[in-house]
Amino acid sequence: MPTLSPSAFQARKCERGVGLVDQMQAGDRRALSRLVSIVENGGEDSRRALAKLYQYTGRAQIIGVTGPPGAGKSTLVNELALEFRRRDTTVGILAVDPTSPYSGGAILGDRIRMQPLGHDPSIFVRSMASRGQLGGIARATGDVVKVLDAAGFNKIIVETIGAGQAEVEIAREAHTTVVVEVPGLGDDVQAIKAGILEIADVFVVNKADREDAQKTQRHLQAMMQLGGAPREDWPVPIVMTVATKAQGIEAVVDAIESHLSHLQTTGHFVERERQRVEREFRSILQGLALDLVQERVGPEQRAAVVARIQARQVDPYTAAERMLADALGVAELK
Amino acid sequence: MPTLSPSAFQARKCERGVGLVDQMQAGDRRALSRLVSIVENGGEDSRRALAKLYQYTGRAQIIGVTGPPGAGKSTLVNELALEFRRRDTTVGILAVDPTSPYSGGAILGDRIRMQPLGHDPSIFVRSMASRGQLGGIARATGDVVKVLDAAGFNKIIVETIGAGQAEVEIAREAHTTVVVEVPGLGDDVQAIKAGILEIADVFVVNKADREDAQKTQRHLQAMMQLGGAPREDWPVPIVMTVATKAQGIEAVVDAIESHLSHLQTTGHFVERERQRVEREFRSILQGLALDLVQERVGPEQRAAVVARIQARQVDPYTAAERMLADALGVAELK
Repeated sequence: MPTLSPSAFQARKCERGVGLVDQMQAGDRRALSRLVSIVENGGEDSRRALAKLYQYTGRAQIIGVTGPPGAGKSTLVNELALEFRRRDTTVGILAVDPTSPYSGGAILGDRIRMQPLGHDPSIFVRSMASRGQLGGIARATGDVVKVLDAAGFNKIIVETIGAGQAEVEIAREAHTTVVVEVPGLGDDVQAIKAGILEIADVFVVNKADREDAQKTQRHLQAMMQLGGAPREDWPVPIVMTVATKAQGIEAVVDAIESHLSHLQTTGHFVERERQRVEREFRSILQGLALDLVQERVGPEQRAAVVARIQARQVDPYTAAERMLADALGVAELK
Repeated sequence: MPTLSPSAFQARKCERGVGLVDQMQAGDRRALSRLVSIVENGGEDSRRALAKLYQYTGRAQIIGVTGPPGAGKSTLVNELALEFRRRDTTVGILAVDPTSPYSGGAILGDRIRMQPLGHDPSIFVRSMASRGQLGGIARATGDVVKVLDAAGFNKIIVETIGAGQAEVEIAREAHTTVVVEVPGLGDDVQAIKAGILEIADVFVVNKADREDAQKTQRHLQAMMQLGGAPREDWPVPIVMTVATKAQGIEAVVDAIESHLSHLQTTGHFVERERQRVEREFRSILQGLALDLVQERVGPEQRAAVVARIQARQVDPYTAAERMLADALGVAELK
């Protein structure tokens, strides 16, 4: 068997990623799974595959589902997927766990929960744990969403655990954000943060058969009234569910569909998309620029500069300006 | 009164930021407060001030305190600060709320909680809400820590609310991370994530007068044993506290001091610092490179490219490569 030089091997791998896009478009599920893995891992292979499949994106409704641990999000998401299927809508599900940056917490959950959906070819389920990298999880999530979008899924549900910065980043990429609360937790001011109120397009009070469910509902209503005028003329609905008994699921799906119509008729859909594209483009540009500078400077010089910064012989701002000017062959930056 | 041209005005503002560093070094508290505001806001003024004060940094022990909402972190941090003061150690406190990106949640908390510390000039307290920007809160936190470090505080406590990605980012910048758990919440697998276990240098079980406190302690011990070998030869201590009654506080401070000695004797202190400097330098370099490209390209051309990406006429990866090549005046990137 002939061996390939590293660069030839790299080229063949990239070819393969790009070829996979055609196979995925032809309905090949294994090609889809492999593409998801490639873009999750990032790097040059991922960029090439994404460049190729980008033309097929922009058709799915991206739905974020977030809320505190123990709110029953996974069960709810399963039921939502089943209801979408009854309406002849295909569904991709991404379960993201940004609170578990080092270990595969999400994967464990995945095995436990996704069995009821496993045999339907119009539902695709994937779970991801965070890479512990600044913005890493948001980047990988956005890229996997693009693969599912290009693969033709009508709805893509991104389920996130917790209520931190990463959720907000992910919610920002969604067209419709469903925030799940539960009686008992939700009465605490800490649990329903102002930030969460502002990202919610649909509120779900799950486990609504608990006795204080009405109180949680009233509390949410009061907090929204305190929050002032409704966002973008959309009165955020509060839907009561008992996901374990499949109660209230149709109403949640109706609310998600109504929100999509609202976005489309008001022009907000196109505007959200423009903002998303702009943010993404900036981030890609930034990554490429850094790669370029680092390549031109080389690892030894970089290590030497870091050592001088650590010794407080130079500050990192001045050092960065000098390195950039060096790398670009200009005397001064401005 | 003569008016200044925008650039002269900018220059004077920068001068002022740099002058403030000297005043702060001379012990001026108002200069310190103003510098904190300047670096919080970011931008060119912030960069200049940080470049000037960088030489005075690297002396403080940075202590992260994190844990779920309702764990009593604020009360604990207040008590830790008072105990440090009894040991003649000066303390800067930064309360960061990454779960509240849109509103000033942290500021409300600040008013309520910080009164007992307000009159001691050797304690400085500041609260920050997230900017809703990717990595924005981590950047701003790191920069405010630098100001407090340069101002000469011996210990800088960074308190974060929640348990998401932002906490992990902030913990990574700390020398010593204290993770606070409480009985009742902590028995849930969801509450004590594998990721949290791995960032903890000291565990605190607060509200230890609750009946199931021992159970929480045993649970933590079991989880740490499951996690394999102790990190860096440091057996993570579990300290029981009742912060509202100032119980167990001395033991927490002892554990924090022991961890500092451990870092110093093993050489981990210098290595952590090197990694931190490297990450920070990359991030500054990346921001500068993006600024440069955007400046050279101009807003109209950028908007036109974004519109073409949105229309799927070009993918963002190819567009970014072309823009970078254009901005740098090269035919191709590689």
